[in-house]
Amino acid sequence: MKNYKITVEYDGTRYAGWQRQGNAKDTIQEKFEQVLSKMCGKKTEIFASGRTDRGVHALGQVANFKCEVEMSLGEVKDYLNHYLPRDIRVKEISEADARFHSRLSAKGKAYEYRIAVGKPSVFSRKFVYAQEERPDLNLMKSAAEKLLGTHDFLGFSSLGKSKKSTVRTISSIDISEEDGIFIFRLTGTGFLYHMVRILVGTLFDIGTEKLPESVIDEVLKTGVRSHAGTTLPAEGLTLLEVYYE
Amino acid sequence: MKNYKITVEYDGTRYAGWQRQGNAKDTIQEKFEQVLSKMCGKKTEIFASGRTDRGVHALGQVANFKCEVEMSLGEVKDYLNHYLPRDIRVKEISEADARFHSRLSAKGKAYEYRIAVGKPSVFSRKFVYAQEERPDLNLMKSAAEKLLGTHDFLGFSSLGKSKKSTVRTISSIDISEEDGIFIFRLTGTGFLYHMVRILVGTLFDIGTEKLPESVIDEVLKTGVRSHAGTTLPAEGLTLLEVYYE
Repeated sequence: MKNYKITVEYDGTRYAGWQRQGNAKDTIQEKFEQVLSKMCGKKTEIFASGRTDRGVHALGQVANFKCEVEMSLGEVKDYLNHYLPRDIRVKEISEADARFHSRLSAKGKAYEYRIAVGKPSVFSRKFVYAQEERPDLNLMKSAAEKLLGTHDFLGFSSLGKSKKSTVRTISSIDISEEDGIFIFRLTGTGFLYHMVRILVGTLFDIGTEKLPESVIDEVLKTGVRSHAGTTLPAEGLTLLEVYYE
Repeated sequence: MKNYKITVEYDGTRYAGWQRQGNAKDTIQEKFEQVLSKMCGKKTEIFASGRTDRGVHALGQVANFKCEVEMSLGEVKDYLNHYLPRDIRVKEISEADARFHSRLSAKGKAYEYRIAVGKPSVFSRKFVYAQEERPDLNLMKSAAEKLLGTHDFLGFSSLGKSKKSTVRTISSIDISEEDGIFIFRLTGTGFLYHMVRILVGTLFDIGTEKLPESVIDEVLKTGVRSHAGTTLPAEGLTLLEVYYE
């Protein structure tokens, strides 16, 4: 039984996220498992580095599945791409160690969030959050520094309470502007439910002076979600990369 | 009465092309004229540098319209972008000389055609023609040189016969490959009906050795459409730029 590791991109616009949910046919996992079960000749499960939510995109999601099939790596990749819809694509494939698990083995992730000021290019309109306000880049950069390092990010998540640890480490937040699009790139050991969308929403609220910079330290200390900024829409969010040892 | 010149981009996927046709609501011209007639307070016509066909995209279509309105250029642009659909966007606006006409004043155009080998990126999938064959870049580059200059391109059009001149000048054809996408950039004084799609289709047929290079000289001489290559699908074609003096 081989353990296949794949790197996947998808346009999340029309999906209810990665994770299979009951009988819903509109998840990315479900699309994969339909094709895999046919290819492998039996019900086959696929594991991703993490679920992405409804409407969230991926440029470098990583997943793995186990399958016994008389095909080369290139043939497996071509088979999947042939039968998967046009908005899901396998970019890379390799054979991994039997113990490799895309979620459990992951050491970190990078996400990108894009905010357009005014009407975005028609060619990228589905991958940005379009709105009318122009945030101050320096205010946001300064506030972002306060998020770096290891903290309890409960107040920057939609988890309510959690029995599991909500401590995470953010190693970098880069913010830049290109042609009226503000691009936020975050890397860290992992991100809680809605965490990237709330972090960027809070930075944006600080950049547009709806919130003071001090809100960051306060929410990191108190964990009170309602004091942080807006949860931005899913369409601006893309999972860029998953890191392994 | 001011004469507004605008540069426009659109994702042509869901439109029956630029040009208004009877009662069809799904043309780009119709979408503009609905918004313009409201803004200008009376029925207002818009003129483009040329029609683009059903499904063809534009990165730099140029159009002009006449209107009397108490708004700054920026306000006109914002008004149009606000009311136009998300797949049509005004990129630039200026006030032109009263005699400026986007079609009659045009001196040349640049088009781009994109052919993917295998499954294209999910983020650009609507703007490339995806197929499985890999053409030979050098064969295509060599054949493209024979198209440069001033010729009667009737045989590389879907015009059948034409009372108007079918002589055009092609000043450059650049062909490159990037990440499995073959990109064809053509500039010239103007292009006949389906001409870019047939030219690139012929180059592709030469690059995949379905046609010999000699077909180019032959079709330029005889004007026999059926001897040239395939008319490629609209989705790979984008009007890049329109040139004026």
